[in-house]
Amino acid sequence: MAAPQVGRPTLASIAAAAGVSLPTVSKVVNGKQDVAPATRAHVQKVLEQHNYVPLNRKAPESLLVDVVFTALDSPWAIEILRGITESGLEVVVNALSQSPGTDWVQQLIAGGRRGAIVVTSRLTPADQRRLGRSRLPVVVIDPVDMPGQDVPSVGATNWAGGLAATEHLIELGHRRIAAIGGPEPYLCSRARLDGYRAALDRAGIGVDPQLLRHGNFHHEGGYEQARRLLELPDPPTAVFAGSDEQAFGVMEAARQAGLSVPGDLSVVGFDDLPMARWSSPPLTTVCQPLADMGRMAGRVLTELITGAELATQRVELATHLVTRASTAPPRT
Amino acid sequence: MAAPQVGRPTLASIAAAAGVSLPTVSKVVNGKQDVAPATRAHVQKVLEQHNYVPLNRKAPESLLVDVVFTALDSPWAIEILRGITESGLEVVVNALSQSPGTDWVQQLIAGGRRGAIVVTSRLTPADQRRLGRSRLPVVVIDPVDMPGQDVPSVGATNWAGGLAATEHLIELGHRRIAAIGGPEPYLCSRARLDGYRAALDRAGIGVDPQLLRHGNFHHEGGYEQARRLLELPDPPTAVFAGSDEQAFGVMEAARQAGLSVPGDLSVVGFDDLPMARWSSPPLTTVCQPLADMGRMAGRVLTELITGAELATQRVELATHLVTRASTAPPRT
Repeated sequence: MAAPQVGRPTLASIAAAAGVSLPTVSKVVNGKQDVAPATRAHVQKVLEQHNYVPLNRKAPESLLVDVVFTALDSPWAIEILRGITESGLEVVVNALSQSPGTDWVQQLIAGGRRGAIVVTSRLTPADQRRLGRSRLPVVVIDPVDMPGQDVPSVGATNWAGGLAATEHLIELGHRRIAAIGGPEPYLCSRARLDGYRAALDRAGIGVDPQLLRHGNFHHEGGYEQARRLLELPDPPTAVFAGSDEQAFGVMEAARQAGLSVPGDLSVVGFDDLPMARWSSPPLTTVCQPLADMGRMAGRVLTELITGAELATQRVELATHLVTRASTAPPRT
Repeated sequence: MAAPQVGRPTLASIAAAAGVSLPTVSKVVNGKQDVAPATRAHVQKVLEQHNYVPLNRKAPESLLVDVVFTALDSPWAIEILRGITESGLEVVVNALSQSPGTDWVQQLIAGGRRGAIVVTSRLTPADQRRLGRSRLPVVVIDPVDMPGQDVPSVGATNWAGGLAATEHLIELGHRRIAAIGGPEPYLCSRARLDGYRAALDRAGIGVDPQLLRHGNFHHEGGYEQARRLLELPDPPTAVFAGSDEQAFGVMEAARQAGLSVPGDLSVVGFDDLPMARWSSPPLTTVCQPLADMGRMAGRVLTELITGAELATQRVELATHLVTRASTAPPRT
């Protein structure tokens, strides 16, 4: 089968289809008066049938921007993306591994992009210099490292989230509370663990180094670290995981060890992805407002593009604890 | 703080920055010979520092297309999107509720889009007529209704998936096997349920209408229908759910009823989203190759745009069963 012919209708093709002269079509398109009403109606119908878009009637100016993810492998990404698309920008999606690379900025400019949002990519100092020189407006969401002073960024109150999660467990009566962080270089993870330490400290509970672990943010990170924690002579009664995905790994390690959640082990996650409601039991977790972060990044980028003044270079949106069924008082 | 100045460097601004004449910069950019080597090197460095992209050196032609989702509310969407971005197209993401709407095609053309991929949107006959008239190449992924003959589409072998899931449960020894479909109008769901019926029929097991349910594809759809199934005087020992998300709802209904999965109830999902591996126990499910479907849709759209001949208007990619820990023989 032949592919349908591609191409936009022209005034000439409309004239041919309508059986009128080209000047007549032009008059109708440009709103001139000297066309008979019946002819005008006929031409307008043909224009509509052919989806004619006049070249001089521009669509409302659209701001085409790139959104760069390190990888499109996480349900996390769709939440942020939804927020960005709701900010009114036209969003081209890009998945890059590691740093955006040498040609990236030039490609963006050549492709008519007005700006870019970079999500948790690790921007090297070279990337940052390139961005600075390009004058292309860029906003970073939740960077691995704090970006340079001149790159605006959007994040969440990670420290406050770690504090709230740990205080919730302390209030339930837990004293042996483990924490699993993400990879050590991640600043967001450091902030969450510092919140955990602060909560223990406020409650007069010492930090047991055996209960503080690091794994990758994925399921296996939580699973592996929880297995080790549950094998300790004095295992924890509760675990604060670095992400929801890690928390699911902790729940699976508990199941395999014959422990019930929350009866034998309480589990708190971080993110509040849609699937936090789908686990069995549903997961208590720290809600990170990912869609709002995307929306905010879109707003900041729009301000940069239109030359508005930014109120601040760094915005952190509030996290809050969502209590579901994976946490309970420890067995006495 | 003032936003950084926006704008692309010009030959004139480069000349000013380099302290040379405009014709000298022009010669360097255009590869002319009559420039002193030291001057050339200096100008090239300044060009690089300013990320100058010559207007006449076009980037390799990029195919900018729109991808239209009904809603960006599912981890499902990110899988398809990943596949499409891997097909080499430049992808603008759009989330629309219900039908794409009257202005949609005109906006795409005005925005320079070369085509569009529509994901599970319900295209009305009016939408289809509009698309046909526009001559804008369009591919549909997994349509709710079968699209008209002239709209190419990509889907998965839903019937074979339903058959495989049900045969797996029969082989384990189950006879009371329930199925939960999606909303009745969805053709993909009908095909899965017909596969379920075919498997029962081949095994000489009659279909009990009480065990055949419809719910929405989401968690609550599975939860609500499973609650009713488990209240039957002769409840099922296994459930084939219409989606992974529904299957998680079935697992939660079982947990609340004091039943263990798979000891008391086997559960099979459909999709194999990343979180099928994260549930506790990990979910046995029918893998729908969502990323491959996205990649294939991108390939078909590229063929349409470049005027290549399509081998077929409808491609269905193979599903296959992934056996994990949520299924086991029934208690005897």
